[in-house]
Amino acid sequence: MAKSLEVEHSKKAFGWAAKDTSGHLSPFQFSRRATGEKDVTFKILYCGICHSDLHMAKNEWGMSTYPLVPGHEIVGVVTEVGSKVQKFRVGDKVGVGCMVGACNSCDSCANELENYCPDMILTYGVKYFDGTITQGGYSDIMVADEHYVVRIPDNLPLDSGAPLLCAGITVYSPLRYYGLDKPGMHVGVVGLGGLGHVAVKFAKAMGVKVTVISTSVNKKKEALEHLGADSFLVSKDQDEMQAAQGTLDGIIDTVSAMHPLLPLIGLLKSQGKLIMVGAPEKPLELPVFPLLMGRKLVGGSCIGSMKETQEMIDFAAKHNITADIEVIPIDYVNTAMERLVKADVRYRFVIDIANTLKSSS
Amino acid sequence: MAKSLEVEHSKKAFGWAAKDTSGHLSPFQFSRRATGEKDVTFKILYCGICHSDLHMAKNEWGMSTYPLVPGHEIVGVVTEVGSKVQKFRVGDKVGVGCMVGACNSCDSCANELENYCPDMILTYGVKYFDGTITQGGYSDIMVADEHYVVRIPDNLPLDSGAPLLCAGITVYSPLRYYGLDKPGMHVGVVGLGGLGHVAVKFAKAMGVKVTVISTSVNKKKEALEHLGADSFLVSKDQDEMQAAQGTLDGIIDTVSAMHPLLPLIGLLKSQGKLIMVGAPEKPLELPVFPLLMGRKLVGGSCIGSMKETQEMIDFAAKHNITADIEVIPIDYVNTAMERLVKADVRYRFVIDIANTLKSSS
Repeated sequence: MAKSLEVEHSKKAFGWAAKDTSGHLSPFQFSRRATGEKDVTFKILYCGICHSDLHMAKNEWGMSTYPLVPGHEIVGVVTEVGSKVQKFRVGDKVGVGCMVGACNSCDSCANELENYCPDMILTYGVKYFDGTITQGGYSDIMVADEHYVVRIPDNLPLDSGAPLLCAGITVYSPLRYYGLDKPGMHVGVVGLGGLGHVAVKFAKAMGVKVTVISTSVNKKKEALEHLGADSFLVSKDQDEMQAAQGTLDGIIDTVSAMHPLLPLIGLLKSQGKLIMVGAPEKPLELPVFPLLMGRKLVGGSCIGSMKETQEMIDFAAKHNITADIEVIPIDYVNTAMERLVKADVRYRFVIDIANTLKSSS
Repeated sequence: MAKSLEVEHSKKAFGWAAKDTSGHLSPFQFSRRATGEKDVTFKILYCGICHSDLHMAKNEWGMSTYPLVPGHEIVGVVTEVGSKVQKFRVGDKVGVGCMVGACNSCDSCANELENYCPDMILTYGVKYFDGTITQGGYSDIMVADEHYVVRIPDNLPLDSGAPLLCAGITVYSPLRYYGLDKPGMHVGVVGLGGLGHVAVKFAKAMGVKVTVISTSVNKKKEALEHLGADSFLVSKDQDEMQAAQGTLDGIIDTVSAMHPLLPLIGLLKSQGKLIMVGAPEKPLELPVFPLLMGRKLVGGSCIGSMKETQEMIDFAAKHNITADIEVIPIDYVNTAMERLVKADVRYRFVIDIANTLKSSS
């Protein structure tokens, strides 16, 4: 892990940061750059807690820089815009997701797929163009290039809308890219957590029939009655799984833990697509013969482009899609992290920044 | 293994069959059905030897029925047509590939994808609609429903054209389906055997830049100078592989042996596609993180539909694509099988049926 660069910016900022690999978060005074020509500065109102915040706070991916202010599901209200900003004005409701920059010169950037740029700059914990380390949304203000800022439509609640900026786009993008968004299709969603529960909502809004696949029958009632899924499969129930063989056009697999792919591939029709959006630590076993026999594929997807993120937010607003959240004060964040490890949240924590983050300075 | 049904058809036939799991082939008198209303009967001139013939002769897939006449790269000249046959006349040059029937009622059949029909009937060794066991092309005559018969254009040589009916369509279909057929694209071909060498030819004819990826540098000269590949990578040379990271739009992987996927996935650009057409016996290791980071996919493909097989043959004729073959007499077939085990053939054996298969009756 690298040490955070001690560059003092002009704009004072305050947030909660992890200071070491314990991952424990505590108050932290820092600074953000002055609003540049193409920058948007906004007062942060809410920030969702993503599972990757936990990994980064503890340096579990070996790339963290301390002090580290997590948070990449950030929404707020614009307070200042640079002279060349075209899309936003003071008072606009906006959001920032997982990234704040990219190289602008590679094939991915040329194709408006900044999320696949090898030099994509994450919202927190990595080096920005000016050499400073980016800091996330568990803080009072945000400054970002307008290209990485999303407009939040008026009717989309800011608190429950915040998680869409990571969890939402992560499942929306593969539904679109892999063509699993056609009315009448039948799509499976594996894992009913932060990602899975919004995957059900987006797929349903697209007119797709949805089957939730989970290790636990406990989530059945919730999936069917509350989230609107059409059916539910317990992945450990071999009879249920057998009866559903060859019924799905695609699957969005949100599970990061090690799990067998063969039963999921079996659920697919010919030409079916199993899309992974969670990354297990070790390689999974891939049976090749079943892929051949049905011309099936296993694909990956990683968040989404800025263009697609705006499209997703607009779609969510139009169809009243939000995350199911538990709003917490900032001083509950360490407890929330502990509960997150145990998957004890339905389905996303969102920090009420504006009302609970008080600078001690 | 089931015993072959002893139904006596009206049409006497003669071929070479495996009688037991030794896989040893020897002369065999059998019969074929009379030409039905929609059937085409043809005199077999050539038949290619596919690696699966070897597996089936030895019952290595546990599904063989003895006596078993292998062969599914069959070409010849029509001698008789049924009263309702529309596409063929006596004297036409025709071929039959891997399948001779399907259910005609499933989704795959409805979409003209008979090759993905769960009840697809293989050209040899499985039960046909009439209850008899199908027998393949190491024999003097063939009877097949016209739907499963392909027209061979006049300019396509019958001997070197025969392997296209299995090896050819197996690599042509994924190039088309997965969109790896666009001029200017860059595609890798893993393994330079019966499938790989025609994959290079088809991809080149589509205007695609081709890199051959092989464990052995010995094939480099052949790949570049004879087959027309643009470049060659030795998969065990880490420097070469590293330098080629992120350069390929897709890969056709023809290798059936166990092999690592991670280096191949690394060769792909973002949105790149690794397509498997060979089926290793055991599951391969699939690293998920690299799939996510570049929205890459691993897909399968299995031969091709009848419609696509005709399209492939017409494309081959137009672009003068044939397999590189070693023509052998039928009494060399057991030796050829032994050489096939050692991959000692450049690149496909084809049996000269018309001139060497003599009935002892």
